[in-house]
Amino acid sequence: MPLEIERKFLVKGAAWRALVGESGRWIRQGYLCRDPQRTVRVRIYGEEGFLTIKTEGENISRDEFEYGIPSAHASELLERVCLRPLIEKIRYRIPWGRLTIEVDEFHGENSGLIVAEVEFPDAHTVLEPPDWLGEDVSLDLRYRNSQLAFRPYATWK
Amino acid sequence: MPLEIERKFLVKGAAWRALVGESGRWIRQGYLCRDPQRTVRVRIYGEEGFLTIKTEGENISRDEFEYGIPSAHASELLERVCLRPLIEKIRYRIPWGRLTIEVDEFHGENSGLIVAEVEFPDAHTVLEPPDWLGEDVSLDLRYRNSQLAFRPYATWK
Repeated sequence: MPLEIERKFLVKGAAWRALVGESGRWIRQGYLCRDPQRTVRVRIYGEEGFLTIKTEGENISRDEFEYGIPSAHASELLERVCLRPLIEKIRYRIPWGRLTIEVDEFHGENSGLIVAEVEFPDAHTVLEPPDWLGEDVSLDLRYRNSQLAFRPYATWK
Repeated sequence: MPLEIERKFLVKGAAWRALVGESGRWIRQGYLCRDPQRTVRVRIYGEEGFLTIKTEGENISRDEFEYGIPSAHASELLERVCLRPLIEKIRYRIPWGRLTIEVDEFHGENSGLIVAEVEFPDAHTVLEPPDWLGEDVSLDLRYRNSQLAFRPYATWK
């Protein structure tokens, strides 16, 4: 069973941009189901299409089932079938010790939001956080992408 | 774009059983999303697992996106993630002229219900119906599997 242990942080300032070695990759995604017990996500990541089911685990662990699908299907599902609004963001990967910090810079209706995600190989690995990592929002449901596709950042003010 | 033109009928009597050349195949399925605009189905058909997205078309045509997944994943999704109740049925395939009639005999909470489905290659193909085909219920939403997984046949009386 694929298990995901992930923490999510707000990003402070722009210092992280100096650490980005590669250009970011464009992500476009939408949801067929936003129920936290069983979200179903359609994603185009670069040129690849994915269908992903996530289900609620305890605390910060979630089960994830991910399948590659033809990007033409993903594109059609996003255009015609997924709930609105879609999520659009650029993902940057920053190596950090033995871990990788993924910084997501949102666009569209979530423009202005920048969050960092760290996936841990196990529950014992420790992150030495860089200065630009802000508040831990792992348990704040508003920052879930499935929720940002329902109540986008632009509507929070 | 995969397009599905399908009609669904009630089955009268037991004459159809004499036409079944092969043993039926057990189907177990459940739903991650029952919204008619975007149903997401997990199915185990014999030994194979599938993830299928159907979206509303006009009248009896629906778009369908189907992907094979490991049957162990399908099994875990059915056990732990899908909405209740699950659908259990045996499917029999009966060749009928150039078409195939699929008879679904439901079990579990939909026990007693037997329906026949015919998939047409195009909108012009005509079915010469056998005597045991009853009322056309193609447009009766109650007979959709996604609805039978919500309001099973046993609760109709």
